[in-house]
Amino acid sequence: MLRIRSATISDAALLRTMIRELAEFERQLELVTISEEELKRDGFGENPRFRALIADWGGQPAGYAMTFRYYSTWVGPGLFLEDLFVRDLFRGRGIGTALLAAVACIAVEEDCYGIHWEVLDWNEKAIGLYKALGAEFRDQWRPVLLTGEALKRLARKAE
Amino acid sequence: MLRIRSATISDAALLRTMIRELAEFERQLELVTISEEELKRDGFGENPRFRALIADWGGQPAGYAMTFRYYSTWVGPGLFLEDLFVRDLFRGRGIGTALLAAVACIAVEEDCYGIHWEVLDWNEKAIGLYKALGAEFRDQWRPVLLTGEALKRLARKAE
Repeated sequence: MLRIRSATISDAALLRTMIRELAEFERQLELVTISEEELKRDGFGENPRFRALIADWGGQPAGYAMTFRYYSTWVGPGLFLEDLFVRDLFRGRGIGTALLAAVACIAVEEDCYGIHWEVLDWNEKAIGLYKALGAEFRDQWRPVLLTGEALKRLARKAE
Repeated sequence: MLRIRSATISDAALLRTMIRELAEFERQLELVTISEEELKRDGFGENPRFRALIADWGGQPAGYAMTFRYYSTWVGPGLFLEDLFVRDLFRGRGIGTALLAAVACIAVEEDCYGIHWEVLDWNEKAIGLYKALGAEFRDQWRPVLLTGEALKRLARKAE
């Protein structure tokens, strides 16, 4: 019933749809600007910036995972898991664990020390799953983001 | 007095020294296993996994920044700032801001939407600096890490 496969360029529209479904679940759909063309360019060109896995259940797209390479100056190469998502209709069938297991498989095969990601603090189901799998919550670290005008203003200081 | 430059392979030993100094400042030196050889292989080979900038003050190495490419499925290409460090003797001279500005410059030049990083919750000086620069603290997101035996156990589920 379940098949995990690597996404190809012909999955770009599907990926965008599921990316938007995940952002809606995370109550932040208004922040999503990515287009199908950008996903094609960035994920499936000569020097791909991410890798996506798609979970099909009975031939239907049921979820996805999106990763890219990470580097820890303390321990070396790792994987960053940017997105992990199972569509509403397909939850409760172990698809999230299967996708995460496939990412773990890539990490082990590529000599990565680990997988690094972020979870929303109210997403208790996901947090419970990650704890059960033995993940470590690095709560002393606060994620920070610099974008837009603040980024440009800072860049100008370097000139 | 201050010069920001790209690190080269001959800086690998210096980088390792400063990486260890940063980890010591962060009270986690025991977690650092990276070797000079690994930094040479991963940062300065054919397909580098990170980029490092070094700040020299009066010809002396005063700090460094280490970044790699990030990808947001919501908005596209970004930069991850793994490390930003100014050595004890050189603090209070704007070197941290200058390094961060150089990273911001790379981000703008390469059409990145932003810079993503993490700060320790007790590092008030750094937090104050990032706030002053207009960074956003994404405190609803909890960083998670899966490593070691837990990672291998999960990978075996995919087989």
